[in-house]
Amino acid sequence: MRPRLSLPLLLALASATALAAPPPKPWRSSAEVIATAPAADWREPKADDLLVMELPQGRVLIELAPRFAPRHVANIRALARAGYWDGLAVLRVQDNYVAQWGDPEAEKNPAGAKPLPPGLPKPGIEFALPFKGLPFQPLPERDAWASVQGFVEGFPVAADPKRNQAWLSHCYGMVGAGRDMAVDSSNGAELYAMIAPARALDLNVPLVGRVLQGIELLSSLPRGSGALGFYEKPEQRTPITRVRLAADLPEAERPALQVLRTDSASWTALLQARRWREGWFVHSHGAVDLCSVSVPVRERPR
Amino acid sequence: MRPRLSLPLLLALASATALAAPPPKPWRSSAEVIATAPAADWREPKADDLLVMELPQGRVLIELAPRFAPRHVANIRALARAGYWDGLAVLRVQDNYVAQWGDPEAEKNPAGAKPLPPGLPKPGIEFALPFKGLPFQPLPERDAWASVQGFVEGFPVAADPKRNQAWLSHCYGMVGAGRDMAVDSSNGAELYAMIAPARALDLNVPLVGRVLQGIELLSSLPRGSGALGFYEKPEQRTPITRVRLAADLPEAERPALQVLRTDSASWTALLQARRWREGWFVHSHGAVDLCSVSVPVRERPR
Repeated sequence: MRPRLSLPLLLALASATALAAPPPKPWRSSAEVIATAPAADWREPKADDLLVMELPQGRVLIELAPRFAPRHVANIRALARAGYWDGLAVLRVQDNYVAQWGDPEAEKNPAGAKPLPPGLPKPGIEFALPFKGLPFQPLPERDAWASVQGFVEGFPVAADPKRNQAWLSHCYGMVGAGRDMAVDSSNGAELYAMIAPARALDLNVPLVGRVLQGIELLSSLPRGSGALGFYEKPEQRTPITRVRLAADLPEAERPALQVLRTDSASWTALLQARRWREGWFVHSHGAVDLCSVSVPVRERPR
Repeated sequence: MRPRLSLPLLLALASATALAAPPPKPWRSSAEVIATAPAADWREPKADDLLVMELPQGRVLIELAPRFAPRHVANIRALARAGYWDGLAVLRVQDNYVAQWGDPEAEKNPAGAKPLPPGLPKPGIEFALPFKGLPFQPLPERDAWASVQGFVEGFPVAADPKRNQAWLSHCYGMVGAGRDMAVDSSNGAELYAMIAPARALDLNVPLVGRVLQGIELLSSLPRGSGALGFYEKPEQRTPITRVRLAADLPEAERPALQVLRTDSASWTALLQARRWREGWFVHSHGAVDLCSVSVPVRERPR
């Protein structure tokens, strides 16, 4: 059962994976690439795709991914418009894994649970979509988890081109719709944010978006001491003040965020800056991995 | 500058990396593998290699790695025996990166800093060691960061056999010795724990051990709002009550931890259980990565 990797095989593997050659110097820093990215290399998430979750600690801003999970995203928009999450709570924080929010009563006491908006559809399974035709920016690095990997419109994506399948990947800050044992039981009412990468979850549960700002408000919450990191006492939960789409907020309360385009030259330059580092770094690996580079976000310049 | 990966090349890559065949069923769960691991598959860290850091929130237990950074570990033992960290603080928590502790005055006000134990040597650079002869348990998975990867005595290790070099890797929970710009400026007095994987740090700063218990006490601390996650106000820091080697604690206060041996059949079985999952999971990737499986730790059975 133990993997048998002889030293000659290890050496062969090693030579098959020599580092890419370093680019000519001077190497640019990530900070410099981001600071000098032209305006055209930034985009503003649509107000209908931007979920604003207000916690006592501050706002968590989530960009929804309707291309990848259109039916879940439709539900999430409906739930936000119905004020479904207002007064509910962060229920679960499992260290090195996820923070999850929804209705504490939904599972244990369905009779006492907050009603869903009438007619909310069951979205079914939305784990993957066709790879062909996706505006996919590949990473050339080797990856343990998928045959190809890269970015689509700011989201980390893994893919199996032979099966014509692509899926969002469980990198830090990604947001998904929790499900029970039944594979199609997610409805968007219970959401989770990744506070660590966990790519084993890919293709097992639908991802619906990515935290653009405020993930540290979730990642720094006390861990729950119950099974799976659920809080054991109601008073340990973090209450949710309000969740709305940016589109439904008064103009003055709308976030003014911009996200670096992953189909831009600045993004390509940023990846190179992450691969080849100077300054404090004395060794560069010439590599990134799918979850090691998050797509930059900034406030809209005035 | 953009990596050029054509669809045919992507397809070729994909076929070169077909999933390993699933093992025969029934697949065992991780919990079952851990629960049924025989006593011989567990080891107890030496009391001289076990650092006990007491915070107001509880104890953080760190296994030192003298094989990888013997001179830093010698310094850390001397610092613990001198009570150096007692009354110092966690100074920096940078989201999705590191938590760091030491003397707040060390950099900005060296005259007001706590003196180091007299004669504490400068340990120099301890980033890597020879690969040959290491008791290395390889992972067969593809890896973006190194030509080979695996585990040595419970620690995640990456290696370049062609250069006969191996190094500890910056996975979640690993502990390192901070340094300034000078590549040899770490001395073990300022330590950090990884609250996220960051393998770009490998070969840039010495790793000295791994948190066996209590990492969630560090990962759930508020993030610092200063540059690099340093706290801006002294009262935001977490005070360190005491740091000692287990060897120097009264018998009753010594941790009784056991770590699963990474050269055991149980470890091999655990990796398989992480690659192939049942129960809630409907899709298995047949893969792990170096930082996705942490080595199990338990209390010594009575």
